[in-house]
Amino acid sequence: MTLSLDGFVCGLRAQQPPYLDDGFFRITSWAVKRAAWRERAGMEGGLVDADDALIADKFARAGAYVMGRRMFDSGEEPWGDEPPFHAPVFVVTNRPRSPLHREGGTTFYFVDSVAVAVEAARKACAERNDHSTSLGVHISGGASIVSQAIAADMVDELHLHIAPVLLGQGTRLFDNLPDKMIELRRLHVIDSPEVTHLAFRLH
Amino acid sequence: MTLSLDGFVCGLRAQQPPYLDDGFFRITSWAVKRAAWRERAGMEGGLVDADDALIADKFARAGAYVMGRRMFDSGEEPWGDEPPFHAPVFVVTNRPRSPLHREGGTTFYFVDSVAVAVEAARKACAERNDHSTSLGVHISGGASIVSQAIAADMVDELHLHIAPVLLGQGTRLFDNLPDKMIELRRLHVIDSPEVTHLAFRLH
Repeated sequence: MTLSLDGFVCGLRAQQPPYLDDGFFRITSWAVKRAAWRERAGMEGGLVDADDALIADKFARAGAYVMGRRMFDSGEEPWGDEPPFHAPVFVVTNRPRSPLHREGGTTFYFVDSVAVAVEAARKACAERNDHSTSLGVHISGGASIVSQAIAADMVDELHLHIAPVLLGQGTRLFDNLPDKMIELRRLHVIDSPEVTHLAFRLH
Repeated sequence: MTLSLDGFVCGLRAQQPPYLDDGFFRITSWAVKRAAWRERAGMEGGLVDADDALIADKFARAGAYVMGRRMFDSGEEPWGDEPPFHAPVFVVTNRPRSPLHREGGTTFYFVDSVAVAVEAARKACAERNDHSTSLGVHISGGASIVSQAIAADMVDELHLHIAPVLLGQGTRLFDNLPDKMIELRRLHVIDSPEVTHLAFRLH
């Protein structure tokens, strides 16, 4: 997840139509400029550097995705016929719906809880893993899904990208977590001009 | 300011008597172990390393301090006869009170707004500065004072120390800021086993 230094994954304007949020565009700009992101989005060009390598690694390691319904709704149209995932995506929603098959290996499955989504994504990874790979479940967001997964003790690693900006108001990544201390083990701190990457292990 | 990865400067138990908050003790433990902190607190020993150097530098650069009334109230007794500041400290409170002189060069002045406190602290720094020093105002906290100072455009640099822990609930450093994007310029990212130091310039 990319967040502002004050902890927001998007600003206030992402919370209501037409969802054009300058805060969200600002904090995610580091990714949109990179080649690995652009390739998955069907766009040409892009920077190839340490930030790009992290994005490429994220895609390479993700055997299945979990996301919330609002993230799916806001992405469905811009992602187009070939969404960037190229893997099963489990969407948490209380509106039952048949699976949605897209080009490039992406299929969206609609399930009714974070726990069901993570479990199904784990199984999908296990089926895709062979001796040479070690695919994992990538929880894409939004913020509420990430917090629910942390609270349910279903998150092994947190990979945060801190954009050097304060948004002031918006949607917090960490909100409504229980009053419980969770110790983290640092995996890496990677500094770059546009963003600071922090990764931690929870277990 | 030291904060948890989820953005809290203390947990829920710091908000009411007896103010013994395991979250606060956890996130500030990196400082309490260091020699520069211990020396100012009248304690012996402590680690001398990169983290310690940052604390020593903070004290060396601070020509005057600004803090909120609750921080003063909770510190007055533990700080004892010789508080760690060795400089003028401007406490924001709506309860007028005469200055409080302590040993070691610390005097607490009580003023009625963040703006007055920062201005008075700036003057105190200017009086203390000579050609060889460049003392600045250190805003010690709490969270509300920092946010008020940012909102009033009175903060030049943000020095954050991120402890690798989630508290879940507590007092957020960044809360009630206006809905306004503030771009930051990165000064440094210093990684250490116990804490990640991030510093930014606001102007």
